[in-house]
Amino acid sequence: MSKLKALFLSLAVGVVSSTVALADTHDPLPSWQDGASKASIVAFVEGVTRSESPDFVPVPERVATFDNDGTLWAEQPMYFQLFFAIDRVSALAAEHPEWKTEEPFASLLAGDIEAVLAGGLESVLEIVMASHAGMTTDEFEAIVTQWLSTATHPVTERPYTDMVYQPMLELLRYLRANEFKTYIVSGGGIEFMRPWTEEVYGIPPEQVVGSSIKTQFEMENGKPVLRRLPEINFIDDKEGKPVGIHSHIGRRPIFAAGNSDGDLQMLQYTAAGDGPRLMLYVHHTDAKREWAYDRDSHIGKLDKGLDVAQEGAWTVVDMARDWRRVFPAAD
Amino acid sequence: MSKLKALFLSLAVGVVSSTVALADTHDPLPSWQDGASKASIVAFVEGVTRSESPDFVPVPERVATFDNDGTLWAEQPMYFQLFFAIDRVSALAAEHPEWKTEEPFASLLAGDIEAVLAGGLESVLEIVMASHAGMTTDEFEAIVTQWLSTATHPVTERPYTDMVYQPMLELLRYLRANEFKTYIVSGGGIEFMRPWTEEVYGIPPEQVVGSSIKTQFEMENGKPVLRRLPEINFIDDKEGKPVGIHSHIGRRPIFAAGNSDGDLQMLQYTAAGDGPRLMLYVHHTDAKREWAYDRDSHIGKLDKGLDVAQEGAWTVVDMARDWRRVFPAAD
Repeated sequence: MSKLKALFLSLAVGVVSSTVALADTHDPLPSWQDGASKASIVAFVEGVTRSESPDFVPVPERVATFDNDGTLWAEQPMYFQLFFAIDRVSALAAEHPEWKTEEPFASLLAGDIEAVLAGGLESVLEIVMASHAGMTTDEFEAIVTQWLSTATHPVTERPYTDMVYQPMLELLRYLRANEFKTYIVSGGGIEFMRPWTEEVYGIPPEQVVGSSIKTQFEMENGKPVLRRLPEINFIDDKEGKPVGIHSHIGRRPIFAAGNSDGDLQMLQYTAAGDGPRLMLYVHHTDAKREWAYDRDSHIGKLDKGLDVAQEGAWTVVDMARDWRRVFPAAD
Repeated sequence: MSKLKALFLSLAVGVVSSTVALADTHDPLPSWQDGASKASIVAFVEGVTRSESPDFVPVPERVATFDNDGTLWAEQPMYFQLFFAIDRVSALAAEHPEWKTEEPFASLLAGDIEAVLAGGLESVLEIVMASHAGMTTDEFEAIVTQWLSTATHPVTERPYTDMVYQPMLELLRYLRANEFKTYIVSGGGIEFMRPWTEEVYGIPPEQVVGSSIKTQFEMENGKPVLRRLPEINFIDDKEGKPVGIHSHIGRRPIFAAGNSDGDLQMLQYTAAGDGPRLMLYVHHTDAKREWAYDRDSHIGKLDKGLDVAQEGAWTVVDMARDWRRVFPAAD
């Protein structure tokens, strides 16, 4: 061995030891109450990362997938992307006089969201297409970024990106500190999430999987752009989540977190792999600090998933009991 | 600053210095002749990575995309995936007596590949569907892995994974050593590539973008599987390449390499971003060590792309002159 290489190795070992020593002095999950949920997470992570553990998992296989709405940030009184769509329709209404009489736009512009939602998926898709398509991908990114910088939640009056769950931010960080790759796998729009997930969650755009509309390569004034088309490309929900995971990641996760029946297939797909696994449901039990809903909710319904989780001894996080804090402190 | 933290920082700085010192003593691209192509690559990488450079690019934005067929491995006398499809059709022929009279299968089983290719894209797709669909994704991965472990190239008689370009392996490694994320963006099947790209190229499955058929989530004996359906999902070629890049990566590359007109839109999309860019074409000029083909070739046609590259002063690698070695040494 060359002198230089020996020096390099000794320094590298030194760094590793110091890092471990530093990590040991801190609780990586300070917003989690000590209890079964936190213990199951820590036991899992230690089991798959300690080189002498029988459950050791090599770094490239440490894939963790997270739902977004209701798992990383709130989703009540309705999906935040729907507030975005509504604001977009209002902003575009002057260019579309026909919307005054055409449903679902007429109801929406009259502020009757109940009537819009009563129209089901078809009405929602019409609104999404009208508000999310037509522009280039760069233009859409700018629109989302601009909206998030000014829009506030109707109940808390905080910016939407403040309504992320502090314990989940810590969990993401803890997993990454243990060399997991953390992914979002959400029914929400992939292009609606990517502009801000890196800053808010530390998850880069290439690790975001979501629903999408089609895009098309075009030359605009001699410059190539991608135009967003009013046509569904992929719905990343329920049975779609394992399909999206396979398409984007190409590996089965060993850790998956969700909060609704829409995440059940992702958790089942994760559970079905060999070796150690952790499947986690965030159960919204906290009407005081957040919202309490499960089996009968129109948004984020958790019914069959709760039964399967209990049968399978998955980790079910009781938000009221397991979380010391829900949202990050306001500035 | 704590003593521990100071120790940590000093060690970290020490490691960085030693690494730089080690790197400086080696040519990272030994199979490249000294000349304009190699110089353009080195100048680009140094420009975007040196912190004091006006062209400095932060690590997360260092995205490099590579075509596969004809760019990272050979593609003559025809795409290797087509050899795989033909072998699969032969293996399945006993279960399909109707193929004896149905085209394109009859021609294929009679060994008349010319007749198959004369049927155009439709014939090729029929063969791909018959040979690539029906099984689960896990089963398909096993079939590909098994095939690659035994199949050999009809001309060189080497395993297909030996027919990768040594200079491009060095280029991939050089970029990664400079904190680029390297991706494959290929017209080939994403699931045909993923089982071996990590071992052969150091590119993990989540960094492979390619053409795909649809998959479907199913419960098979109580276990969730993904079934491959005989239906095109996405063609990652020409205008599809920027679409695939946007869908999977969500960032515009700053470096892109290809070898045919099928890569032109990817290179144009890369070129159209702000700041420093490198667009590279591998030009197949080496009839002695590999193959020589460009404007008139049925496979890997490079015609319009060559004109655009020359106008734009892109890097055009002359395989015969720029590469000291084409393939890795045989064991």
